[in-house]
Amino acid sequence: MSVTSREIHLVSRPEGMPGPHHFALAEKELPAPGDEQVLVRNLFMSVDPYMRGRMMDRKSYVPPFKLGEAMDGGAVGEVVASMDARYQPGDLVRHMKGWREYALVHSKELTVLPPDTGVPVQSFLGVLGMTGLTAYVGLLRIGELKEGDTVFVSAAAGAVGSVACQIAKAKNCTVVGSAGSDEKCAWLKKDAGIDAAINYKTCGKLNAAVAAACPQGIDVYFENVGGDHLEAAIENMRPFGRIALCGMISQYNATEPAPGPKNLILAVGKQLKLQGFIVSSHTDMAHAFQHDMVGWIRAGQMRWQETVLEGIEQAPQAFINLFAGENLGKMLVKLAAS
Amino acid sequence: MSVTSREIHLVSRPEGMPGPHHFALAEKELPAPGDEQVLVRNLFMSVDPYMRGRMMDRKSYVPPFKLGEAMDGGAVGEVVASMDARYQPGDLVRHMKGWREYALVHSKELTVLPPDTGVPVQSFLGVLGMTGLTAYVGLLRIGELKEGDTVFVSAAAGAVGSVACQIAKAKNCTVVGSAGSDEKCAWLKKDAGIDAAINYKTCGKLNAAVAAACPQGIDVYFENVGGDHLEAAIENMRPFGRIALCGMISQYNATEPAPGPKNLILAVGKQLKLQGFIVSSHTDMAHAFQHDMVGWIRAGQMRWQETVLEGIEQAPQAFINLFAGENLGKMLVKLAAS
Repeated sequence: MSVTSREIHLVSRPEGMPGPHHFALAEKELPAPGDEQVLVRNLFMSVDPYMRGRMMDRKSYVPPFKLGEAMDGGAVGEVVASMDARYQPGDLVRHMKGWREYALVHSKELTVLPPDTGVPVQSFLGVLGMTGLTAYVGLLRIGELKEGDTVFVSAAAGAVGSVACQIAKAKNCTVVGSAGSDEKCAWLKKDAGIDAAINYKTCGKLNAAVAAACPQGIDVYFENVGGDHLEAAIENMRPFGRIALCGMISQYNATEPAPGPKNLILAVGKQLKLQGFIVSSHTDMAHAFQHDMVGWIRAGQMRWQETVLEGIEQAPQAFINLFAGENLGKMLVKLAAS
Repeated sequence: MSVTSREIHLVSRPEGMPGPHHFALAEKELPAPGDEQVLVRNLFMSVDPYMRGRMMDRKSYVPPFKLGEAMDGGAVGEVVASMDARYQPGDLVRHMKGWREYALVHSKELTVLPPDTGVPVQSFLGVLGMTGLTAYVGLLRIGELKEGDTVFVSAAAGAVGSVACQIAKAKNCTVVGSAGSDEKCAWLKKDAGIDAAINYKTCGKLNAAVAAACPQGIDVYFENVGGDHLEAAIENMRPFGRIALCGMISQYNATEPAPGPKNLILAVGKQLKLQGFIVSSHTDMAHAFQHDMVGWIRAGQMRWQETVLEGIEQAPQAFINLFAGENLGKMLVKLAAS
């Protein structure tokens, strides 16, 4: 048995904003699974800002995407055929061979999704997946979150940010988020239940807006944006504050390096910690994360949004849309009906 | 018994480089010590870059100096008269009432210097004092130094930097330092025994010079300078590297905030930690520090230089000279013969 799969190739390396012409749709014939291989029909794939870094040809924590080949990334799917007795057709699995309709995956690179969680399968790419774990690691380990802290989250309505906001609320923190539209801010206050939301596009001076929203100062800043956001956070951090550097989406498409925060010197006197992290270095927290997150979901303490485009041919546009801030919550591509 | 003491007042707040006109010499009559007070004849006082921050009128970790009053800072001296039985005339003590010839100090704000260390009394302001403790805390706690690490130290021939270099060598690390003259670089290699020294004024692109000196990358950067130095360090940090933010002397006299490092985004992918610290938050390490430092001195593993001006009237100039990089090692003012 072989299947025909469509997949997305990177065909040139973007400088600045990526566009449709950097990608191509290709067809590939997949053979039947060999020893210890599993054939998966992908149901959903994830697009994430970190993938922008992999489109550059440079040394980094993950190797760059190769030109003329399928990209990869998180996906969930259904087992179609298996040469490993631990996986049976119909099993729902998660793996890293996204950007394609069917994936031939070595069985050791698969995770079976836990049954009976009551959440839709695509949540295992979002709130119960790498996205949620990123928020959990960033707040609890890197940010050393304590009950009662004041927490500031940028890109707060995004996939990671919205989970970070709600974990902090579940930990009895005061939470302030920033986002780029009134609609996102309304969702953050009403659904995510945070204490204050700042529309950074209309608030005037971000520094002053953050100061007004955090009159006691910030204990933990969850950094997704960079630029003005980082500067405003540093200005308003309390002594011994922690900044979890998760990403700086404002800079991923910059063609010239942007200047860093002018006030970084404040980190000395305030004794701040700024720490970058990559979720894959902290998978030892995955078990505790899943336990806690299922609990928060069941207790009604965790809400999320999804922005879903349909069809593998839409995957490049889904990715591009991340940088326009057009997504509410987790951006996904639906590849097949389950 | 009363004494006449001369002291240095701050008379106006510098913008940019401090000059002699920001200071004034004043005379003050000190009464005999009251209950629990001790009268100390100061022998040496310390001038330190951090004092520049206290000349500004802003909220910080230590309150600003008041205009028209004596400044303060580290000093060592000899007890002249005491109303606390634990202190006897002739005892050598350390305290924070520098910038004056005689100090009336509450006994709980005094530390008796340990006897029989075999080092000159002024070393308790430098290698065995706050300066040395700063290097110790920054490397071992904030920098999480491990044997075999590659360590980069800026202002490496300065008071703190030169101790940091030698602690790292004592811990079997590879040590690269930067300094602003060939004379300082020669001292660093020959006397402090570090592996490579960079004259940042003549090396061309600092980034390339650091890369050449640290071909394996940097595990710990001890930051005293800011600006280009921080950027070059970030560029060359290894994954999971630690940056101890001790100070940024290049920026203390800036009249406009300098842009931060353009490459701070690398802290995400490399999972770097940047952490500011103030030595007074880590006095729990003072005992271990003194034990280790006396050991290193006795083993011949610790050398230091001093630049000494004589007389209280020279104190402002000694302070100003810090920012011209004119000091070799610890900058001190000798106030009286012991």
